[in-house]
Amino acid sequence: MKKEIGHKVWAIAEGYIPSYGNGPEPAFTSHETACILNTSEQDAHIEIFIYFEDREPVGPYKVTVPAKRTKHLRFNDLQDPEPIPRDTDYASTITSDVPVVVQHTRLDSRQAENALISTLAYPVIN
Amino acid sequence: MKKEIGHKVWAIAEGYIPSYGNGPEPAFTSHETACILNTSEQDAHIEIFIYFEDREPVGPYKVTVPAKRTKHLRFNDLQDPEPIPRDTDYASTITSDVPVVVQHTRLDSRQAENALISTLAYPVIN
Amino acid sequence: MKKEIGHKVWAIAEGYIPSYGNGPEPAFTSHETACILNTSEQDAHIEIFIYFEDREPVGPYKVTVPAKRTKHLRFNDLQDPEPIPRDTDYASTITSDVPVVVQHTRLDSRQAENALISTLAYPVIN
Amino acid sequence: MKKEIGHKVWAIAEGYIPSYGNGPEPAFTSHETACILNTSEQDAHIEIFIYFEDREPVGPYKVTVPAKRTKHLRFNDLQDPEPIPRDTDYASTITSDVPVVVQHTRLDSRQAENALISTLAYPVIN
Repeated sequence: MKKEIGHKVWAIAEGYIPSYGNGPEPAFTSHETACILNTSEQDAHIEIFIYFEDREPVGPYKVTVPAKRTKHLRFNDLQDPEPIPRDTDYASTITSDVPVVVQHTRLDSRQAENALISTLAYPVIN
Repeated sequence: MKKEIGHKVWAIAEGYIPSYGNGPEPAFTSHETACILNTSEQDAHIEIFIYFEDREPVGPYKVTVPAKRTKHLRFNDLQDPEPIPRDTDYASTITSDVPVVVQHTRLDSRQAENALISTLAYPVIN
Repeated sequence: MKKEIGHKVWAIAEGYIPSYGNGPEPAFTSHETACILNTSEQDAHIEIFIYFEDREPVGPYKVTVPAKRTKHLRFNDLQDPEPIPRDTDYASTITSDVPVVVQHTRLDSRQAENALISTLAYPVIN
Repeated sequence: MKKEIGHKVWAIAEGYIPSYGNGPEPAFTSHETACILNTSEQDAHIEIFIYFEDREPVGPYKVTVPAKRTKHLRFNDLQDPEPIPRDTDYASTITSDVPVVVQHTRLDSRQAENALISTLAYPVIN
């Protein structure tokens, strides 16, 4: 597939990692995921910034998605420059040096039965 | 990030706030949320109009999202010019003086286990 | 709001109405909904076509969404030219003579706890 | 409807088929679905490629969606060139020789109550 697939800048306005969950971990840990697909022939160098309601944005968090690979990145796992606080509203921007596709998913396992959401992230016109 | 991220006009065709819920409040109160991300260097002055099935639109509801901040706005909390009625179908438009990104989420806790939906709002081309 | 909001042609590739549900009706009847928002000053005359896996499309189903109103249309309620069969995969197109915004929602109440999905429909460039 | 509806290239960054589920099969088998709508007068010849985190993409999987028909394709059912592994993160691209519309849905029935997600796939500009 020669065609470029995706955008270099994405935004996810929703973000919230519950501080607890139910069910066997890690599959049923409450989590937020950015699913990133890089169909290009070059590695994608990704930078993520996290926005909050009442303080300055934090970042960049740096991640590489190799050429022709996908990465389902859990925001829970981001550590550098700092972990994302739980039970806190946030939003994010995701920038890449090659076009990628980003989809946002949350598993909320705070109650006995899990709830799932997913939506395409917002692609910023290149 | 110098690039403008988002649009100045958004629409959410779905809207419905159940009148009751289960679980510890406020986290598990049934609610509708517009998650708004303002990555720009200026405060975003937001105006929301609510559309109904059988009467005139109501608004504007006014909200400010500061520069480089996100706000996860619960429609439940809107009071001026009037609260949004429960158990009533509605829709909304969201306009801003600077580009923002809007995502729509609903937590429905009418039953023992909550249900979540989320989708990107509809961006109107600037 | 003078600006036109929306598109005149939309498509929803997903469609499936379960034949049963749980919980108090009609709120918890399993249903598929097309939430339509018409912010314009003219009534929107809507035509819906239903596509199936193994037979010819059916339609048009005709609906009017008045000026500056929203309508959350349950596919369950469509009767003319024929009801939509239950437990059957389908898809739909929605055309309007004025621009509208369409969001797709399903409540699945086949099990004790309901599940919800929602996503923006696919806007066809005018 | 004379107008072309859809795109020829789509991407779904999220993909994950749980290896188990609850409830009567096949309706409640955990599954991932690509709902494809072909409103055109020609059959759509579809090719799907699956991307992984740590190995080369697999494909093409070939499917035909006849003219004026929809197909709700379960990724679980794809067999050739090889079945999609369970409990494994993946992503996909979907290409067609005529414009189609693609929506992504997952039923997760690992717990007693099912969870549903759905979102429009990512349309690549023709």
